[in-house]
Amino acid sequence: MRRKARTASKAENRPRFWGRHAVAAALQNPERTVAKIWVTREAAGSFEFGRDVPVTYADAADLGRLVPRDAPHQGIVAEVERLPDIWLADILDGASERRPLLVLDQVTDPHNVGAILRSAAAFDAIGIVTQDRHAPPESGALAKAASGALETVPWVRVVNLSRALDEIAEAGFWRVGLTGEAEMALGEALGPPRVALVLGAEGEGMRHNTELHCDALARLPISDRVESLNVSNAAAIALYAATVA
Amino acid sequence: MRRKARTASKAENRPRFWGRHAVAAALQNPERTVAKIWVTREAAGSFEFGRDVPVTYADAADLGRLVPRDAPHQGIVAEVERLPDIWLADILDGASERRPLLVLDQVTDPHNVGAILRSAAAFDAIGIVTQDRHAPPESGALAKAASGALETVPWVRVVNLSRALDEIAEAGFWRVGLTGEAEMALGEALGPPRVALVLGAEGEGMRHNTELHCDALARLPISDRVESLNVSNAAAIALYAATVA
Repeated sequence: MRRKARTASKAENRPRFWGRHAVAAALQNPERTVAKIWVTREAAGSFEFGRDVPVTYADAADLGRLVPRDAPHQGIVAEVERLPDIWLADILDGASERRPLLVLDQVTDPHNVGAILRSAAAFDAIGIVTQDRHAPPESGALAKAASGALETVPWVRVVNLSRALDEIAEAGFWRVGLTGEAEMALGEALGPPRVALVLGAEGEGMRHNTELHCDALARLPISDRVESLNVSNAAAIALYAATVA
Repeated sequence: MRRKARTASKAENRPRFWGRHAVAAALQNPERTVAKIWVTREAAGSFEFGRDVPVTYADAADLGRLVPRDAPHQGIVAEVERLPDIWLADILDGASERRPLLVLDQVTDPHNVGAILRSAAAFDAIGIVTQDRHAPPESGALAKAASGALETVPWVRVVNLSRALDEIAEAGFWRVGLTGEAEMALGEALGPPRVALVLGAEGEGMRHNTELHCDALARLPISDRVESLNVSNAAAIALYAATVA
């Protein structure tokens, strides 16, 4: 996949990933530069480190000081470079008819974006699209929640989400926006096979201008006992519904 | 609903809840004793405090010291008593035909259990059942993830999950266990209307003995790109599938 070049960052700007799935996936991703590894002797046996990755052996307590308090590092921490940028056109071109696309409007919580990446991998989505100014950067918490999927699911960051939605429509996708105010149930909205699922932030929902760039608006069949679902749960349901439709 | 009596706990054992949804729901729950409130002047206007709840006004920085680091308290923290216990028989008796039940085997992460409670409320589940020794206690992180649903969704803690599953079957539920090893797809397994959805921990999955107490085992249609879904996402999908079945 063609990617924009990105220069190496200073050490203090590099994200630190932790946890076995997140770090193993980073090590296996040819697009990912792993700048440094800290690992316990016990955990080290589960990994294959390239010969150009500096590895420091440390005990679990030392690792604990490299990550946020109580972060479940599972004996391994990696300092990494961010992934190179990906162009929207590249993932749209290569898409097979059946695979869905996810578009996130202002979903900023790293745990939610990570969990959405994991579900996107599970349901074989072609990628996720976010707006640069309203999306979290790569981080340890995000990579942990993604459980490896940050390395395998293309994540396109665009400057203008409305323009991206135009481009997605031109590529033949049917854009279904999820909103509690819609009258149509999600199952009814999923007609044509090639679907882009558009989700907004919890509470706020998607912006009005984003709604205007959807072909259909649909709701999940939830009771009035809650205002909304957690956005990663809503995304998982939408991906499932698109898969079984 | 009949509940087992529980004596008041010492202050140091009381959970602290934070965030507007979690605290507002606790204040509205007649079963919940709120022992103490700390609130900013700005946030206070959004709440109605009963006259017997001691309220302390504080600034946001003080509230920050009452909760885990970086916890998004949104200007309000509550010290509460845990909810009284609920008996399984009570939620089974009152169940209408269509509402699902969730059974969790060894799901210990408080964020996941909280998110599952939120989805359970959204899909009008009659409650969740966990095993006492393998489930998280009520906590601020759990209540925050539940976004109020901890106060409205009955949560039954049982000593023996297998015996509980027997009791659930006797009450007329069709017990569907979710596992990646099953051959049947979830959609096929959801025949009879009254369903108990059984989910295991991520990674480990449900215990073998739990599987033996299910009427059917089913899998979600996920690709081999990931080992599993996040358990709260799997629960949300299962609840959706049971609702539209």
